[in-house]
Amino acid sequence: MIKMLKLGIIGATGYVGAEIVRLLALRDDIKITTVVSNSFAGQPFSNIYPSLRGIYDNICDALDMDEISEKADYFITALPHGVSASIIPGLLERGKRVIDHSGDFRFRDVKVYEKWYKVTHNAPDLINKAVYGLPELYRNDIKTASLVADPGCYPTCSILGIAPALKNGIVSHQDIVINAVSGVSGAGRKSELAYSFCETDENFKAYGIGNHRHTPEIEQELSLICGKPVMVSFTPHLAPLKRGMLVTSYLNLNSQMSPTDIHSLYEDYYRNEPFVRIMPLGQFPEIKYVAGSNYIDIGIAVDHRLNKLIVISALDNLGKGSAGQAVQALNIMAGFYETKGLLTSGLYL
Amino acid sequence: MIKMLKLGIIGATGYVGAEIVRLLALRDDIKITTVVSNSFAGQPFSNIYPSLRGIYDNICDALDMDEISEKADYFITALPHGVSASIIPGLLERGKRVIDHSGDFRFRDVKVYEKWYKVTHNAPDLINKAVYGLPELYRNDIKTASLVADPGCYPTCSILGIAPALKNGIVSHQDIVINAVSGVSGAGRKSELAYSFCETDENFKAYGIGNHRHTPEIEQELSLICGKPVMVSFTPHLAPLKRGMLVTSYLNLNSQMSPTDIHSLYEDYYRNEPFVRIMPLGQFPEIKYVAGSNYIDIGIAVDHRLNKLIVISALDNLGKGSAGQAVQALNIMAGFYETKGLLTSGLYL
Amino acid sequence: MIKMLKLGIIGATGYVGAEIVRLLALRDDIKITTVVSNSFAGQPFSNIYPSLRGIYDNICDALDMDEISEKADYFITALPHGVSASIIPGLLERGKRVIDHSGDFRFRDVKVYEKWYKVTHNAPDLINKAVYGLPELYRNDIKTASLVADPGCYPTCSILGIAPALKNGIVSHQDIVINAVSGVSGAGRKSELAYSFCETDENFKAYGIGNHRHTPEIEQELSLICGKPVMVSFTPHLAPLKRGMLVTSYLNLNSQMSPTDIHSLYEDYYRNEPFVRIMPLGQFPEIKYVAGSNYIDIGIAVDHRLNKLIVISALDNLGKGSAGQAVQALNIMAGFYETKGLLTSGLYL
Amino acid sequence: MIKMLKLGIIGATGYVGAEIVRLLALRDDIKITTVVSNSFAGQPFSNIYPSLRGIYDNICDALDMDEISEKADYFITALPHGVSASIIPGLLERGKRVIDHSGDFRFRDVKVYEKWYKVTHNAPDLINKAVYGLPELYRNDIKTASLVADPGCYPTCSILGIAPALKNGIVSHQDIVINAVSGVSGAGRKSELAYSFCETDENFKAYGIGNHRHTPEIEQELSLICGKPVMVSFTPHLAPLKRGMLVTSYLNLNSQMSPTDIHSLYEDYYRNEPFVRIMPLGQFPEIKYVAGSNYIDIGIAVDHRLNKLIVISALDNLGKGSAGQAVQALNIMAGFYETKGLLTSGLYL
Repeated sequence: MIKMLKLGIIGATGYVGAEIVRLLALRDDIKITTVVSNSFAGQPFSNIYPSLRGIYDNICDALDMDEISEKADYFITALPHGVSASIIPGLLERGKRVIDHSGDFRFRDVKVYEKWYKVTHNAPDLINKAVYGLPELYRNDIKTASLVADPGCYPTCSILGIAPALKNGIVSHQDIVINAVSGVSGAGRKSELAYSFCETDENFKAYGIGNHRHTPEIEQELSLICGKPVMVSFTPHLAPLKRGMLVTSYLNLNSQMSPTDIHSLYEDYYRNEPFVRIMPLGQFPEIKYVAGSNYIDIGIAVDHRLNKLIVISALDNLGKGSAGQAVQALNIMAGFYETKGLLTSGLYL
Repeated sequence: MIKMLKLGIIGATGYVGAEIVRLLALRDDIKITTVVSNSFAGQPFSNIYPSLRGIYDNICDALDMDEISEKADYFITALPHGVSASIIPGLLERGKRVIDHSGDFRFRDVKVYEKWYKVTHNAPDLINKAVYGLPELYRNDIKTASLVADPGCYPTCSILGIAPALKNGIVSHQDIVINAVSGVSGAGRKSELAYSFCETDENFKAYGIGNHRHTPEIEQELSLICGKPVMVSFTPHLAPLKRGMLVTSYLNLNSQMSPTDIHSLYEDYYRNEPFVRIMPLGQFPEIKYVAGSNYIDIGIAVDHRLNKLIVISALDNLGKGSAGQAVQALNIMAGFYETKGLLTSGLYL
Repeated sequence: MIKMLKLGIIGATGYVGAEIVRLLALRDDIKITTVVSNSFAGQPFSNIYPSLRGIYDNICDALDMDEISEKADYFITALPHGVSASIIPGLLERGKRVIDHSGDFRFRDVKVYEKWYKVTHNAPDLINKAVYGLPELYRNDIKTASLVADPGCYPTCSILGIAPALKNGIVSHQDIVINAVSGVSGAGRKSELAYSFCETDENFKAYGIGNHRHTPEIEQELSLICGKPVMVSFTPHLAPLKRGMLVTSYLNLNSQMSPTDIHSLYEDYYRNEPFVRIMPLGQFPEIKYVAGSNYIDIGIAVDHRLNKLIVISALDNLGKGSAGQAVQALNIMAGFYETKGLLTSGLYL
Repeated sequence: MIKMLKLGIIGATGYVGAEIVRLLALRDDIKITTVVSNSFAGQPFSNIYPSLRGIYDNICDALDMDEISEKADYFITALPHGVSASIIPGLLERGKRVIDHSGDFRFRDVKVYEKWYKVTHNAPDLINKAVYGLPELYRNDIKTASLVADPGCYPTCSILGIAPALKNGIVSHQDIVINAVSGVSGAGRKSELAYSFCETDENFKAYGIGNHRHTPEIEQELSLICGKPVMVSFTPHLAPLKRGMLVTSYLNLNSQMSPTDIHSLYEDYYRNEPFVRIMPLGQFPEIKYVAGSNYIDIGIAVDHRLNKLIVISALDNLGKGSAGQAVQALNIMAGFYETKGLLTSGLYL
C-alpha cells in the first residue's frame, strides 16, 4: 500500500481552506490529518460546511504547533497576512514543507511588502527561501521548495494573461491597464455588511482604486518577465457572483501585428501547460467556463484603430486563484502528477 | 401654504427606515424632521444610503426623547421588539402619534406575545390602545389611533390572501398550511454571516420551522376574521433575492366550488381596496409584479382532486409588508389621501 | 487493461446531458463514445460547453440509429417526453441497455401517463420492462434492467423525503402537502423569455399549480410504498438560482411522536444509503449543501401544536435529481461501485 | 384644468418602453395616449407587464401611422436601429415631435453610422435636424428640437464621466481606456439563450471587443468637447444584474494635479445639473446608488504613480441611460420642469 501524504491545513474554515478540503477529501494519496481553526476547534469540519457531511467530518484542531506538527508533514496555511509570517517559521523549523496563501512570502523585496501591506514583516529572512507558487513560471523551483507562496488571485489571472505578450516583446511594458472583476468569495468568509446579500446583489463597484495590494505582486512578476520595471494601473471591481474572476488587460502593441500571429504566440507559450486554455480566435473567456475548476482561460483581440492588444483572462478565484493552485503546487512538491484531482471541468451551471 | 406634517423616524437607518425615507423624501405634505439612529448620530443620512444623496441629506439624531419630540408630531419606530415597548410610552405621553413596526403592539393578548417572543412586555397597558395597522381590516380604527402596530410582512401577505375565503366560510379554519418565501431584506440590515452574499446566493432554505414569531400574529387575525380559533402550519423560507415575498396557502374547501365563483368572491371582498389586486383567473402573482411597490397581488386555484383552494399572494416585504404599509397608515391617520405617494408600480426589472 | 464501458448520450447538449458528460468525462472505466445532438451535429461538444474544452472535445453526432448503435453498448437518453418513447425501442432491439430521463417510462399505468402528459404513448408495451430508477427503492431491479426510467427531480426529492414516514405508518396517507422549489436549470436549456435573466432574477413564482406532471409520479411511488392510493397537493415554484431543489412536505402524524423517535426512524430507513444524508435533529437542509453533488439531505421537525411532521429535503436537480442519479443507475447496471465518481461534495460556494 | 401633453410610445413593450410607461403613468401633465406594439396589439399593456395592473391597462395599438398620429403630439420611439429611421420621417411630416432611442439619429456623420451599424441609413437628410439628447451638453437645442436622439447608455455614462476632464484640458485626448459593465436589461427583452438565467447568473464576460456600436458615439461627443479627434479603447462587459451600469475610465493627466483640484473642477462643471452627483472625494459610485433612478454618480481618483486619472461613473441603463433620459428630454421639450417625476432616488435594495 502506498503511504499517504499527511497534510495539515491551518485556517481551514475559511473559503480557501474549505475548498482545499473539498478538492482533497477523496484523494487516495493525500490524507488531511488536521484542520486547524481556533474559532471552530472541537467542532466537526462538516458542521461548518455541511456540504462535506459524510465526506470530511474530522474535528477541527486548535493551533498548537507541537500537536499539529506531529500530525502532518506538509502544511497549507490560509491565514491573514502577518499571521502567516509569525507561524510559518515554527513549521519550517520542525521540518515541514509549507504552502502559504497570504501575501507574506510573495515578495522578493521586503520593503515593497511593508510599504503596501503597511506592516513590519515578521520573518524577513525567510523571503529568500520562498518560491512564488505559480507553476507556469516556477515549476522547477516549486519541486524542491520548503516554502511556497501561493500567488494572489488577481496576480495569477493578470500575470498569466499578459506574460506571453510581454515575454515576446510585442507590447510595451509601459501604460498597462488591468481592469479586474472578482466574485465575492474573494473577500473571504466574512460577516461584514459590505458583503451581505442585500448590499451586494444587483450591485457592482470598484474598490481599492490605486492602492490594492495585489498591484505590486503583479508588477514584480511582470518586471521579472520582461526585465524592465513594470508599473500597472490596476483597478479591481466586485461583481454579484460567488466565485470567479475576469481580467481585461489593455496593452500597447509595439508594432502592427495580426491577431492570428499573436494567438499563435500565446498558444506556443502555454503549449505544455495543463491548466491554461487559449480560446480559439474570436472567442473569449467567461467566468462560467472556469468556475469550480483549476483552469485559466485566455482570449485575445486586437483593436487595430488604437493598435492595442486586449487580453481577457478568467479563472476561479477559489480554483486557480487560490485553493486549486495550492493543490497544484502540492502535487508538484510531493512528486504526484501535477494534474491529480484538478482536471475536472468547471460547473458551467 | 399647507402646513406640512412633521414626522420623525426612529431606527431610521435600517432597511425599513430607509425605505420610509425613500417613500417620503419628496412628499410635499410630509417633512421628515428627524431621523434617529444611535449608531449613525451625527452623520448625514445619505452617507449611509448614498442613493439618497441630494435627496435626503439630513443629519441623523441620537435618541434624545425631549429633543426629538420637539421636532415632530408623528413618529414611525422601526426598532427591535422590546426596544419599541420601552420607547413608545414616552412618545405617547408627549402627545405624539406613533406607528410602530416591531411585534410589541400587534397582539391583543400579552401572554401570546410573551410566550412567542420570550420576553416580558414593557408596556402591557398600551396593548389595548394599539390598533393593528392593516387598513384592509382596521381602516376606521387607524384614522384616530394614537398607536398603530404596523403588521409583519408574513402576516400581511398571509392574512390578506386567506381572509376572503375564511370570512365567507368557504374553507375550513383547520389544517391551514402556509408556505412562505421571503427575500433577504426581511432579515434587516445585518452583518451576519448567514446573510452574506456567499452564503445566500444560489441558496434556498427553510427556517423558524414551527416556531416563527409571525405565526401567532397570523393566527390572531384569522381567528378574529372567522370567529373560531385558527392554528396554522406556517413555514418561512429564505430565497436569494433582496426584496419581495410570496405565500402559498393550502386551504380545505368546505364544499365543491368553481374557481370562477371563488374568484368573484375574492374580487368582491377587495373591490374598494386600492392596493389589493386580484389576478385574472389562471394567472398568478410573481414577486416581480409587486417588488418596489405597495401592492399585494393575489391569485387563486382549485385543486379539484383534493378539493383544496390554493392561494398565492405576493407583496414587497419592504412595501406593503412594512414601510409602504406604515406610510399607508400614516396617510390614513393624517387625513391625507390613503394612496398618496404609494400608487407607483413595482420595478418589474 | 480493463475494458471500458462504451456509453452514448442522446440529447447530450441539454443541461442534463452536459452534466452527465461532466460527471463521466474523466472516468477510467466509462468512455463516452458518442454524444448525439441533431442541433449541434458536427460541432465539438466543447464549443457548446466551453467549460469542457480540453476535457471532452468529441464531435456531436446526428441521430442515426445504426451509426450510434455501433458506437456504444449503453445509452442515456435526455430527450423530451414522447421523443424518448419513439427512439428507445430501436435501441433495445439492438440489444442496448438504456437509461431514459423523460417521463415516458416512469409510469406503471399508461393511462396515467397519457392523461397527465396529454399524448398517446408510442411504446406502451415497454412500460412493463422499465424499472423506475430510484436506487433507494429499486436497486436490485436496476441491476439487470435493460430499460431504466430515471426519476424526475421533484419526485426523487419528495418520495425520498416522505418514504420513511409513510412506510412506517406514522403519518396519514391523506392530506399530504408538498411545496417544492426548483432552480431554473430544471426547465432545461431554453431560449424562452420566461427563463431569461431579467424575468427570473430577483423573482419568485409558483407554476403548474394543480397540474404539474410530476404529481402522478410522486403519487404512484408513495402509493406503492404504503399500499394505499395516495394523492398529494403538489405545488412547484421557481427560485432565482441555477441548480438545486428544496421540498417542504407537510404530513399529519397518526399519533403523538417525539422528533427523536422520528429522526431515528429516518436514520434507520436510510442507514445503508450512500447518497441520503439525514441532518442532525434541529438542523435542516439547504440547497447549497447539495448543489453540484449527488446527495439528498433530509431534515425533520414536528409541529406539536398541529401534530404535523414537516420534512425538508434538498437535492441538486442536475445531480440526484437527474444526471447524478442516471450515473448512479449506470454504475449499478454495469456492476461498478454504485458510488463511483459521485461521492464528491457539493460546491457550497 | 391644465391640458395634458399627449404622448405615444412606439415599441412600448420592450424594457425601455415599459420603463417610460412606469415613469409617466401617474403624471398629471402627461397622458400616454397610445402604446404601440405590433407583437402585442390588442392586448392590455398590463398583461405584458403585470406590475402595471391597475396603473396602466391601456390596450396596445398596432403601428398604423395615421391612427396613432391622431392620438398624440409627442412620440417616443424605442425601436431597433434602422426601423426608427423608416418610421420617424412619417411622424415628423405629421408635425409630431419625436424622441428616438435607436442609434439612427445620434451621429452627425452618416458615414460613421453606416460603417459601424453596417446598414444604409433610411433618412440621412434628417440627421442635421436631430439633436443629441444629452441635456447636460445640449439643453438649449433640445428645447426646440423636433427630433431628439436619446443617447446610448454607455455613451451617456462615459461622456459625462470624462467630459469635465477633457473640456478643461487636464487629460490627454489620446489613449483613453473605457472599461464598461452593464446589467442584462441593456440587451433588451430577448428570448435568447445567451441572456437566459442559467447562462447569465454567476457569470461575467466581455463582449463587442473593439467593435461595439457605442464606440463611435462616445468618440463623436468627446471629440466635440475637446475639439480634437478622440479615439477610445472601449470594452463592454455583461454582469449578472438586471439594471445598472458602471464605467471605469483611465485617462492620462497632462500634468501633476491633486485629487482635490480635479474634484473641484468636476463639481464646478456639473454645479447646476440636477441629475449628476459628484461623489465626495474618496467615495465612489456603486450601481445600487443609482439603479431605478435618473441620476448619474461620478467619483474620481488619481493614480499618482502612473499620473492617471481614474473616473468611475454609474447610472441606470434604463434610467439616465435610456428611459429616464428620454423623459428628461421630453420635460425640456414640453417646457415642464426638467426634473418632473425624475427626482426619486434609486431603490438601493
